Parts: sequence; C-alpha cells; structure tokens
Amino acid sequence: MVVATDKSNGRSIPATNISPNTIIELEKGDPAVFEKYWRKRGEECSIVIRGWEMMSYHGDAKNNVCWYMLPEVERSIRRLHHVVGNAVTHDRYIVVGTGATQLFQAAVFALSPSHPSKPINVLAAAPFYSEYQDEISILRSGLYQWGGDAASYKKNEPYIEVITSPNNPDGIIRGPVVKSEAKGKLIHDLAYYWPHYTPITHQAGHDLMLFTFSKCTGHAGSRFGWALVKDIEVAKKMTRYVQLSSIGVSKETQTRVVKIIGVVCDGYQNFGSMESELFFEYSKHLLRERWEKLWAVIDESKVFSVAKYPKAFCNFTNESSEPSPGFIWLKCEDGVEDCESYLLEKLKVRARAGKRFGVDSKYARISMIGTDDDFNEFLRRVSNAKKECEKGVNF
Amino acid sequence: MVVATDKSNGRSIPATNISPNTIIELEKGDPAVFEKYWRKRGEECSIVIRGWEMMSYHGDAKNNVCWYMLPEVERSIRRLHHVVGNAVTHDRYIVVGTGATQLFQAAVFALSPSHPSKPINVLAAAPFYSEYQDEISILRSGLYQWGGDAASYKKNEPYIEVITSPNNPDGIIRGPVVKSEAKGKLIHDLAYYWPHYTPITHQAGHDLMLFTFSKCTGHAGSRFGWALVKDIEVAKKMTRYVQLSSIGVSKETQTRVVKIIGVVCDGYQNFGSMESELFFEYSKHLLRERWEKLWAVIDESKVFSVAKYPKAFCNFTNESSEPSPGFIWLKCEDGVEDCESYLLEKLKVRARAGKRFGVDSKYARISMIGTDDDFNEFLRRVSNAKKECEKGVNF
Repeated sequence: MVVATDKSNGRSIPATNISPNTIIELEKGDPAVFEKYWRKRGEECSIVIRGWEMMSYHGDAKNNVCWYMLPEVERSIRRLHHVVGNAVTHDRYIVVGTGATQLFQAAVFALSPSHPSKPINVLAAAPFYSEYQDEISILRSGLYQWGGDAASYKKNEPYIEVITSPNNPDGIIRGPVVKSEAKGKLIHDLAYYWPHYTPITHQAGHDLMLFTFSKCTGHAGSRFGWALVKDIEVAKKMTRYVQLSSIGVSKETQTRVVKIIGVVCDGYQNFGSMESELFFEYSKHLLRERWEKLWAVIDESKVFSVAKYPKAFCNFTNESSEPSPGFIWLKCEDGVEDCESYLLEKLKVRARAGKRFGVDSKYARISMIGTDDDFNEFLRRVSNAKKECEKGVNF
Repeated sequence: MVVATDKSNGRSIPATNISPNTIIELEKGDPAVFEKYWRKRGEECSIVIRGWEMMSYHGDAKNNVCWYMLPEVERSIRRLHHVVGNAVTHDRYIVVGTGATQLFQAAVFALSPSHPSKPINVLAAAPFYSEYQDEISILRSGLYQWGGDAASYKKNEPYIEVITSPNNPDGIIRGPVVKSEAKGKLIHDLAYYWPHYTPITHQAGHDLMLFTFSKCTGHAGSRFGWALVKDIEVAKKMTRYVQLSSIGVSKETQTRVVKIIGVVCDGYQNFGSMESELFFEYSKHLLRERWEKLWAVIDESKVFSVAKYPKAFCNFTNESSEPSPGFIWLKCEDGVEDCESYLLEKLKVRARAGKRFGVDSKYARISMIGTDDDFNEFLRRVSNAKKECEKGVNF
C-alpha cells in the first residue's frame, strides 16, 4: 500500500509501500542503509572464489599469533586505520574473529585470571550494549561473571570494564568510569568509532580495541571483527579462544573483507575520486539526512525525546559536525511508562526495551541503519502519534 | 631437493621436493588431498559475491529455528544426505555453525540442564578427539565439565556421551559405551561418516548428529558445520548458543557451501557423469591408494604398527570395501615408548601424541589427508626407519 507523502511538519516524509498494520522491525541493527552505496559501486566490489581455493584451516604460516588470518587481511586492517586515523595500529597485534561478538568473548577470556579463586566481574556503564550480559553469563563460567553497571561498582576486587564508544545504544563518547581502587582491565569496543557515525577526534591507542566489519562497511552477514592488541600474550590467548571456539574465521569472509576494505581505501588514496563517492562521506550524508528528518519529527513530538549530541571537530573530514549514531535512543515522555510496549502496540514498531540495556523502561532503542522504507514509515508513525496525542487520544 | 624414487620395498614412493631435514607437519588434519579434485572441476565450482549481497545478519525470516541460515543451505544439506544415504533428515531440524567445533559446544550447551546443582559430565571413549576436552574445559562452565573416558564412567549421575563414528583418531565405527544407569544424552559426531572414509552401512538416525564441510568436501577454510536435530527445543537452544557466540555463520561461507554441495550432488543426479569424476568415488580412490601404500610400508616396519580394519558392504558404492580413515593411528612397537617424540626426533614428522587422545604415549596420530608430497615423504621416512632399525641403529 502506497501512503501519500506527509508534509505535516513542513518536511516531506517519502511514501513507502508498508501497510499501516505491518510491524516494522527496528529492534536489531541490520545495516541495510549501506547497501545502496555498494550497489552504486557495482562489480568492482565482487569477489570470485574458485572451488580449490582457501581450503586450508591456515591463513599465514609466518604469523605466530593469529595463525588463521590471511596476511592480506592484516595489511587491509592496518591500511584502513591508517586512512581513517581512528586507531593506532603501530606496535599492535591483530586478532580476527567471527564478528566482534566472538572477539569480545575472546577478550574477556584473555583478560581473566587463569586460575581465579572466584570469577572476575565484567562491567559496563548503563545503558550498556544489551548482549554483553548474556554473552558473559550463558555458560556460567568460573573465570568471569557479569558484574552489572560499572558506574555503581564499589567492590575492591579486580574487574574488567568494557567501554563502548560511541556507546550502543545512546551514541555517547565514553571513557572508563569505575572508581574502585582494585586493579581493572579495559576492553574498548569501538564498533561505531568511524567517521559516518561520529567525528574522529583522536587516534585511539588503548591496549585492547575491538572493531567490526558489520558496522564499518555494513557487511553484517560476513561475521567479521578484529582486535588491535598491545600485549602479545593477550593476543595469543584471544587466538586460542577463537581456535577452540571455531578453529578460526571463514576464509571466504576474509577474502571479501580484503576486497571491500581495498575499495574503501583506494577511494581515499587514489587521485581523482569524487568526494561524494567516497564510502564514509556518502554514508555520513545518508545518516545525517536521516537524523535531520528525525529531529524535525522528534522536536515536535509530545511523546518522545532524544538527547542532543554536541558538535566536535573531525580530523578525518576536516570539519566540525554532530554525531549521527547508528541507533535512536528514544525516551518516552511522562504518561508513557513502557516505551517498547507503546511503540509496539500503538505504532507497530518493534524496538529493544531499555531494560535490556540496564536502564528503565521509559527508554527504547530503534535502529537508524535499516532500510529507507522502514525508516520513513517509522517517521510517519511517530509524526502521527504526535497528532493523535494533540487530539487527546489516550495512550 | 629432489629425492630419487624409493623402490626398496617393491613399491615405488614418488619423489618429493622435501629436504630430509624439513619437518613434515602431519599433526593437524588439513584436508589438502581433496584440492586436486576441485582443481579438476575448474570454474564450475566458483562463487561470485557482489559488494551489496549478503549484508544482513538474517538468512531466512521464515525459519523459526535457525534464523541466520540461508534457505538454499538447508535444501543443499537435505539433498546431500539424500544422495549419500548416510543420515536421516526427515523430521529433523538443521542448525548450522562456524564449523562442527562451534556446533559441538552448542550441542553440549543445549543438552546440559539449565540450572544444575553441579556441572553435567561430558564423556567420550578413549581414544577420543583431542580437542573435546579443551573445548569443554576452557571456560570452566558451571553447566558442564569434562568427565573423561566414557568406558570407565561409573557414576550414577546424568551425563552427555559424545560418540565419534568413525572415530577420530582411530577410524573405528562406534556406538555408546557408558554402562551407568543414570540418564545419558548422546551427541553423535559423524564428521567422517562419508563414503570416501568408510562404507555407508546404514542411514544414521540419532537424535543429534554433527557433520562438517571440512571433512566432507575438504573445505576446512570455510568453517562450516551442520547438525541434524530431532527435538525442536534442542535445535533452538543450539541456535541461541551460535547467536550469542558469533551472531550466526558467514553468508559468504554459506554461499560457497550451496555451490560445492550442488556440484557434488549434480554429479550423482545428472545423467551421464563418469564414475571416476564423481566426488566420493574420486576421493575414495585417492585415499585407498594412500592406504595401500601405507600398508606396504607398515607391514614391513619393525617400528610401527596400525590396526587392520574389517571390510563392510557400502550401500552407497554398492560394494564391499575396507575403510580409508582420514588419520593413521600409529602404534610404536616395543622399544619406543614415546611415539610422538620418536617421530619428531628421528623422522622429523610432527604428529599428535596419544596422550592428547586420552591414551598412552605409544600412540600418535598422523594426518592421511595432507598434500601428496608430505604423505610420500612420510612414507619414505617410515620406510627408512625400518632399514635403520634393521641395521641395529639405536632408537
């Protein structure tokens, strides 16, 4: 069903083919928004793998740390960080995993004491990424356990703090928050520290940094992540975890990572590329456009609010700009106590509840990186909710 | 360095380019032997993936169990088992993983009680696959723990028994061995239950069966395995494990699995294929040839022995034949107590020690599926060891 263009708030929301009764799935972070870019690039991003290629478990016999990684994958990752300037790769070991999800668990394992008298606490400041807790708790490990909100950690015991920056769900730039005098180890999850989401204000140089292909270029189906690790023993222990968990990482995936990162970097390093055709510029533009449309609707909303982000100077784009996070961290205003249920029941939008992120149910997370249709339909429904609210409809 | 053909035992061992001082790596099971087949098939086995394809985490919105699996992967797996006749797929759910390694852990998780008073014991009869113990023990789970040799399990407590058949390392066809009256759950690891390794004597119909692409077609670099699961709740719990462990399985890998399995099955189902060009016939021939060469050397060896395998009728090839296991389970004769050290020090062959498989050090495992050069050089060195032994050289 085609819904006519809505100009109620002075901005147009494009028509979509989604019926008003269809539930819009914005609970997960499937990065469909970037598909458009890769379609425009056409065949130059294709990979071909022949039947007899990539049959071995091994990637690089000379790599005495991450033995299943192809040498060209390592070069691609170093090149990408060199181009973007978002992280130090000098004097760092690279460990690759089946998504940052696997590497996060590898990192926690590697930083945990091997023979603890009790499990070490793994902490993150709320609101924290909704999956950390389940990933840590699923096997009831005797090595580590979920310790909850880092901001309220008061124990004088060793801990591991995960710092997600920009944060998922709320897009905030973060540093460690634990005040304990006990010895803490840090994992920096920098999945969203890329120029399309946030200004690149500095080259991150932490001891253990995680990145993912899913959120960088949008290839979530590939299941690929990487860690930059300062200490060789930590890198080796992470590699051992990945070995025991899945004997390495798909070589087909690694082949594609090399191709896609190569296309991104070539754009920046080859003379004559048009700025609007460069991956991060193009993607930033897409996300900025969405955020501007969102602000126009949210600013007039009586039901929802979203915190504003400060501008910052981006060393990569050489301009000052606001972040364009990958998620909307929506707060329901007074009168709506359960944001997720309200969204589902009244707007037929599936969001992820605030409670999953360790905060109260007035909050919910909505994906900002889904398809155009889903995003526009979401805007229309939020805009309509405002009107119903004005009409005094009870919610 | 080219070593001249060795005809000392009446059979020729082809020349190799390996210097006598080079260590031959036969410790892992990299399935390089199958590369030759895929080269012969040429471009028909190639996959092409465009930049904008396979970007989503999702595989099949309609699959309410394994949501990250492409529907064509499910069809391919069912088709392959239908062609080979080695396992029942009717009334079974399919769960795919990043190798059978990930799925084995998913299976143990799924079969373990969710809130146990103490961890359930995971058992396997010795000699058992060397990695089970570390995979089970690495995180010190409170749900399950390694219980050791299934044959000596005497506790009257619930357990999970892993039955590897044909067994890795020794190629023996196995069934459950635990005699306890306690309730046990079974995982059947059928990685090697394919016609090139062993006669297909029946269609396996167990409740939980694991298979891997690595050992079936030789594509170990792809990291792909699948489980056939009778109980939907077990299948869902396994899927949840894979979700929390790696948010699914690489879509590039899944694309390749569809292509490769398609080529294998087409060979059998399309009229006019030459038998010698069919995957399992070709591969069985390669392995049989190696085993015959091995027997010629071993039968005359004063140092090593290998147990003989009984013939059985294979329903797939319609003939009676001996198994051709993927590994040589080598026993050192009296006078050599540590088979692995002897192999490394005297023959410069890296093997996996018997102790890793839960038995004594007179045993070691050698890969039978490596490159031609490595295999032939191994044969030559074993043959030379015999001669040195005859000359009275001390070992």
